[in-house]
Amino acid sequence: MARYVFRFSEGGKDQRDLLGGKGANLAEMTRIGLPVPPGFTITTEACRAYMREGRLPPELRVEVTMALREVEDAIGRRLGDFHEPLLVSVRSGAKFSMPGMMETVLNVGLNDASVRGLAEFSGDERFAWDSYRRLIQMFGRTVLGIDGEAFSAALEQKRQQVGAATDVDLGAADLQDLVGTYKTIVRDAGGRDFPQHPREQLDMAIEAVFGSWNTDRARLYRRRERIPNDLGTAVNVVAMVFGNLGESSGTGVAFTRDPSSGQPGVYGDYLPNAQGEDVVAGIRNTLALTELEQRDPACYRELTQAMRRLETHYRDLCDIEFTVERGTLWLLQTRVGKRTAAAAFRVATQLVDENLITMDEAIARVTGAQLTQLLFPQFDADAGKQLLTRGMAASPGAAVGEIVLDNAQAVERTAAGAEVILVRRETNPDDLQGMVAATGILTARGGKTSHAAVVARGMGKAAVVGAEEVSVDVAAQQVTVDGTVLQAGEVIALDGTTGEVFRGEVPVVDSPVMRYVAAGVHAGVEACGQDEGMKELVLAVHRVMTHADEVRRMRVRANCDTADAARQARERGAEGIGLCRTEHQFLGDRRRHIERLVLARTEEERRDALAALLPLQRQDFVELLEAMDGLPTTIRLIDPPLHEFLPDLTELAVRVALAQERGETGEQADHDAALLTQVRRMHEENPMLGLRGVRLGLKVPGLFALQIRAVAEAMVERRRAGGDPRPEIMVPLVGSVREMQIVRDEAERILTEVGHEHDELLEPPIGCMIELPRAALTAHRIAEEADFFSFGTNDLTQTTWGFSRDDVEGSFFADYLENGVLTISPFETLDGDGVGALVVAGVAGGQQTRPGLHMGVCGEHGGDPESIHFFHRAGLDYVSCSPFRVPVARLEAGRAAVVTGEDATA
Amino acid sequence: MARYVFRFSEGGKDQRDLLGGKGANLAEMTRIGLPVPPGFTITTEACRAYMREGRLPPELRVEVTMALREVEDAIGRRLGDFHEPLLVSVRSGAKFSMPGMMETVLNVGLNDASVRGLAEFSGDERFAWDSYRRLIQMFGRTVLGIDGEAFSAALEQKRQQVGAATDVDLGAADLQDLVGTYKTIVRDAGGRDFPQHPREQLDMAIEAVFGSWNTDRARLYRRRERIPNDLGTAVNVVAMVFGNLGESSGTGVAFTRDPSSGQPGVYGDYLPNAQGEDVVAGIRNTLALTELEQRDPACYRELTQAMRRLETHYRDLCDIEFTVERGTLWLLQTRVGKRTAAAAFRVATQLVDENLITMDEAIARVTGAQLTQLLFPQFDADAGKQLLTRGMAASPGAAVGEIVLDNAQAVERTAAGAEVILVRRETNPDDLQGMVAATGILTARGGKTSHAAVVARGMGKAAVVGAEEVSVDVAAQQVTVDGTVLQAGEVIALDGTTGEVFRGEVPVVDSPVMRYVAAGVHAGVEACGQDEGMKELVLAVHRVMTHADEVRRMRVRANCDTADAARQARERGAEGIGLCRTEHQFLGDRRRHIERLVLARTEEERRDALAALLPLQRQDFVELLEAMDGLPTTIRLIDPPLHEFLPDLTELAVRVALAQERGETGEQADHDAALLTQVRRMHEENPMLGLRGVRLGLKVPGLFALQIRAVAEAMVERRRAGGDPRPEIMVPLVGSVREMQIVRDEAERILTEVGHEHDELLEPPIGCMIELPRAALTAHRIAEEADFFSFGTNDLTQTTWGFSRDDVEGSFFADYLENGVLTISPFETLDGDGVGALVVAGVAGGQQTRPGLHMGVCGEHGGDPESIHFFHRAGLDYVSCSPFRVPVARLEAGRAAVVTGEDATA
Repeated sequence: MARYVFRFSEGGKDQRDLLGGKGANLAEMTRIGLPVPPGFTITTEACRAYMREGRLPPELRVEVTMALREVEDAIGRRLGDFHEPLLVSVRSGAKFSMPGMMETVLNVGLNDASVRGLAEFSGDERFAWDSYRRLIQMFGRTVLGIDGEAFSAALEQKRQQVGAATDVDLGAADLQDLVGTYKTIVRDAGGRDFPQHPREQLDMAIEAVFGSWNTDRARLYRRRERIPNDLGTAVNVVAMVFGNLGESSGTGVAFTRDPSSGQPGVYGDYLPNAQGEDVVAGIRNTLALTELEQRDPACYRELTQAMRRLETHYRDLCDIEFTVERGTLWLLQTRVGKRTAAAAFRVATQLVDENLITMDEAIARVTGAQLTQLLFPQFDADAGKQLLTRGMAASPGAAVGEIVLDNAQAVERTAAGAEVILVRRETNPDDLQGMVAATGILTARGGKTSHAAVVARGMGKAAVVGAEEVSVDVAAQQVTVDGTVLQAGEVIALDGTTGEVFRGEVPVVDSPVMRYVAAGVHAGVEACGQDEGMKELVLAVHRVMTHADEVRRMRVRANCDTADAARQARERGAEGIGLCRTEHQFLGDRRRHIERLVLARTEEERRDALAALLPLQRQDFVELLEAMDGLPTTIRLIDPPLHEFLPDLTELAVRVALAQERGETGEQADHDAALLTQVRRMHEENPMLGLRGVRLGLKVPGLFALQIRAVAEAMVERRRAGGDPRPEIMVPLVGSVREMQIVRDEAERILTEVGHEHDELLEPPIGCMIELPRAALTAHRIAEEADFFSFGTNDLTQTTWGFSRDDVEGSFFADYLENGVLTISPFETLDGDGVGALVVAGVAGGQQTRPGLHMGVCGEHGGDPESIHFFHRAGLDYVSCSPFRVPVARLEAGRAAVVTGEDATA
Repeated sequence: MARYVFRFSEGGKDQRDLLGGKGANLAEMTRIGLPVPPGFTITTEACRAYMREGRLPPELRVEVTMALREVEDAIGRRLGDFHEPLLVSVRSGAKFSMPGMMETVLNVGLNDASVRGLAEFSGDERFAWDSYRRLIQMFGRTVLGIDGEAFSAALEQKRQQVGAATDVDLGAADLQDLVGTYKTIVRDAGGRDFPQHPREQLDMAIEAVFGSWNTDRARLYRRRERIPNDLGTAVNVVAMVFGNLGESSGTGVAFTRDPSSGQPGVYGDYLPNAQGEDVVAGIRNTLALTELEQRDPACYRELTQAMRRLETHYRDLCDIEFTVERGTLWLLQTRVGKRTAAAAFRVATQLVDENLITMDEAIARVTGAQLTQLLFPQFDADAGKQLLTRGMAASPGAAVGEIVLDNAQAVERTAAGAEVILVRRETNPDDLQGMVAATGILTARGGKTSHAAVVARGMGKAAVVGAEEVSVDVAAQQVTVDGTVLQAGEVIALDGTTGEVFRGEVPVVDSPVMRYVAAGVHAGVEACGQDEGMKELVLAVHRVMTHADEVRRMRVRANCDTADAARQARERGAEGIGLCRTEHQFLGDRRRHIERLVLARTEEERRDALAALLPLQRQDFVELLEAMDGLPTTIRLIDPPLHEFLPDLTELAVRVALAQERGETGEQADHDAALLTQVRRMHEENPMLGLRGVRLGLKVPGLFALQIRAVAEAMVERRRAGGDPRPEIMVPLVGSVREMQIVRDEAERILTEVGHEHDELLEPPIGCMIELPRAALTAHRIAEEADFFSFGTNDLTQTTWGFSRDDVEGSFFADYLENGVLTISPFETLDGDGVGALVVAGVAGGQQTRPGLHMGVCGEHGGDPESIHFFHRAGLDYVSCSPFRVPVARLEAGRAAVVTGEDATA
């Protein structure tokens, strides 16, 4: 049978599952001899039993009795004693902190008799009645479910009645009177008398804390924070100590280092003659902790010793809650302290230098999300800002610029030296030029994985999307935001980290960490100027990154379509290209070649259209391979349906209908009409599931061949120039080994042919995307014909869930996050249970057929911290992500190699 | 080490894997003492070694030498002997018959010397030179790869030279001369002399047969017939016997029963003084086998005894190839004979009555495909027909009627008593009314799983689709077929079993088997009139079906959306409804309710729109539950995106643009404009992966609730009427247990509510479709909230392969079947490796959480024989298919229970 109660002397910090965070740390402090009030923890297992059975387990009662007796013996007072009563607090304490979500009852043990004992024992009658008043109020609200307003109103009434400015001005008699009123409230609203029996109070409080685990707001919070619902909470029953017994008492919070900068030293606040809830209520201003040294040097010394002890013991920055009761120090809680991103890096390396942790541990103490925060320029915190609207924080960073509404403007204004923000209803591939030119992107529609969001993240540009109040009128060249009209050319600022959009100029501060990441440690330090704290930070990041690079098993590549992006990625530490989307090379002006291909009426015209593309593609590849010289460069054959390069069916149909209606003739009309016929013919109900990827390659003769030849010829050209080109040819959307076999045969034929022409041996690896469930399920077959696998987890997520990213994020993802079907978009963080199961199956299949088969991932997930840890565990050899995410991926790949289990993504 | 050669005396009929079909049966006949010429089989394993190594395994040579010596000893002649030469045939023989695909070389052993020995020994010089001539020709073509035309031309020249009408008129000297010419051809075109060494001939012939396994045409054939490429062929080396040694010799084919009707008796053909290839060439007319009785009674008796022996031994109808050499009978081949569908049923039950096989074996001897053939009316075989065009055979049956081009016409002409054929470019759900009215459907576009094909099969109506020569002009009310213009109203006939379309009336014969299936055995027998053979057939089918129903584990349900369909299904033996698509109840006039819902501007308008649907849906369910009284009736909540009920975006956009251009105003214009806004807003790039199924139910408040309430109220109404309604509520497109949980909670709330209102306990099972990979992969979780699973293998195929059925079948499936990526559409027969793996995972997951969880399948695959066997092995409890397929599914479910492995779908 499970044991439900643990004395503080029996537990330890590694028992958070069973004792909750608070209970485990109270036990740990007790164990190492720090001054903790006596107490015990009722386990999460008891809470789970309570949830299962709907009542407290019967054996719990006995265990609580025995533990309580030990507390009473240790203190030498009895719960609810008429003379020297022991009071206890009953506090929740779950494995993961859920601030403000769950219940606490203080001063349990007071009743009509023991209140007098407390008055006598403490020598402070006002204190005793105030404590009793607080108990009834808290108990009534928390345990009996009475509206707290009733108590507040009675208190307010009493204050007015006696003319007291604050609660402190109420005397003992007023409070005694109030207790009477409170008891009436309990009887009337709670349907019962306030329980006088101390043990009944205790049992009811315990049950109420357990019950608070399952309130709606707690469930909602857990859903949002992705905390499992079935963990349950522990309950800590602790002897009360009082910081409000006069000027020699007090309460405070201490940090072992500055949680905001990471600077070593003593940080914290102290409030004399107060209880913890007074600090929270913020009625009185706290003192700096160092003032305690003046007021009570012995206590201060004892506290700082305890802080050093805890930091050495926990080997990390700790925060501590403490109370001084008439000169005696009591520690009420400690935990590893939350900190800013900058502090995280600095503290981690400081602790290494203090020989408290290893570099492996240091990289476990920071996260990719923290690194990301450090990379972006930020708005000057001190500047005044005029909030215009909010949207979704889609791509972090701060951007300021003139409003532009189209590509032409964006390019023109940028060429004229302006910084611009591209504002669009939504973006599509045609807006790429404008996005490249812009400093930031703002859209009225779309979610975190809309085109605008994905592309902006890929470029590392600030973006706010789905700002629904924004309405764009391109014709009028103006933007309306909830009634406010802004003309193109007006300046706005957007914060991609918060989703805020401001009107007018806001000063931006660049990040030296970014400078370090892009240009190395010297440049980074130089960018810090005289800021020594920032210098320490840059060096800390450098040490962390260097170690992450040393320990990680997974390589990090980048998804780059152009040589520029490739150079940028390389500067950030990319060890190759994991995905070059060749279709991006058919946009803009080159679209007309695809139109020619599609409109070709003869075999010859078709061949000509393709032939025109060859030198363009070859040149693309030459530049790309030059930028990535010596590193693997995975070139994916064309993936999207050809009609994506053509005009929209509906727009074109309307244009043609109107032209006919108006009797227009001429070349343009003929062209449109011909094009409409083709667009109609090629129209697909579900292009995502249609003629694309390898299917397109097998259907359109010469299309893949053109690309393969361009790769081969680019290889030759680079070698002739003394380079070391390492392309890898990747086939998209393979579902069956036979598809791969056919493409491979053709590719090998072309490579041999070009090789013969130039007397070169051309044998780039030929592999495929694993991005369909069937590919993952039949990976053992596909591996027969593939030199490598690259998991395309975007598409795999689409098919595994049956979600079209373009369609569903805007339409029902918000609801799904609200009602808990999703805790996070599966396009952002890999869905381990579903999509992940297929990745694991694909890896196993591949390795079964080709032990050592090289495998990576090139979906957006390749840059997501949690997903990176999954890929490490799944055994992949590399992740590939947007150039901007490369440093984050390097760090997380390193962390994945040294941390395991629940800490992996903390 | 593998042994590569088996004497006939060493093998047996169960060794088809190793010895090929022909070799195994030759061995079997030898083993049971029938007269087979001595010989041996080189195994398929040797062929596989040859394919692996690119040369014959060295040890094979020794084994052949030893086996050959035994043949020589048995016959008393030596291969290539100068006086009494042994000749051998070298024939391929794979596990599965591949008629005409692979090579054979006869008369191996003849050379310039032994030809004279053969002349002397046979006493027939012409025969000897003719044999030699044939060897060089066959060897040259097959082994040396010389164009056969060269030999034919030389033969023709010789015939002209000597004035011979046929080959038979060439004398020994002519043939000897021809041998010289042939040898020259070999030297010139083959690059070497014709090999004189008999053993060299033999080895080269063996290698050539092995090599013929991998010719393009053989590979293509196997791809089409779904025969694995890695099986390899065996080679049979058999002592030659000659049917062309005069009038006491001959060759023939015999069947132990009539393969066309199944009638017992002796059937076959005989050709005196001929070799097998002469029969194939069809130069001379064969005699009925019974004539052999007149010509050689002893031989005939021996043959009929052998036939009886073989039939008893093989316990099945056999066909036999034999040769009589100067009065001696030799059996050259036997196998279980191919037969028509009617013969299959009759023979199976005859063999039961003859105590040769059990009823279990009898049902294994027939197939669902054969049953299907027997169900359809057919064109009178004797009638003259005028072929108009061909398309894909999409739904079997024969249909004759007037051409109609739209719904209105179809309904009008049918109401006037006419039979009509609906001719469309393609069909969509709006054509349903016309399809219901029509006798047959013809479309110019679409594949075997296009809308037209699927719906027609569902209704059991004849359909030919993708008849590309057909061009439909609705405005002109005419159809053009390759230049021929047909007006609406002209009569055409189409054969959905062959894909043929005829012009004008063709008489149709109804099927008594169909009558039996729909109305029972008495009605079926009555429909046969005086046709005793047909009566035997109907009774045979009845016995087979009765036994299949007894032995099958899987239940058979039907996919029905209406009470009419449900009644039809029930008559055919359906044991419930596995899928009622409720969206089909929103078509036609009811569309306007969906338009109202979509256009609703207030919460109240939305509620009103839904409320208007409640009585309609309830009445639908009352009728359905009445038709299926006492049987499970699975009602699927609405699945497709709402915009599917709205007009097409492009059409509407054009209409609105033109109305604006023309300055049209008024109610219709306003309605269209408002509708366009909604249609645009709701438009999805990939509706298949968009807002549909459970997502729609969670997004549109009250939509699922309406349907659930309609089910609940229908249950009450049916119970009040004394019925036994057994609805099951099915949630579509579930991907996560949480979706199921939310819907289930709401459904239970509504059921309790309606139950309270009417004082009834309403607890229908609530389950879900498993039709997304994620649902299959997380089935263990989903089973927590589902009372049953129904695998939606259509959608599961779409997402597993990333194929949109609507898009891909027309665009590249034909190529994929051609190039071997697909051997059959995965929408027709379940893809066991990919989609099937998910079904198996889903079953395992479901049973892990809920042992005994009720599971079925309701995709189109539920009516496909091969898929049914898969579902049986996967452990499903039922299949659900179109009403028309119910008998086939019953039979195949029975067969699945008694047959295993490769015979399962033979």
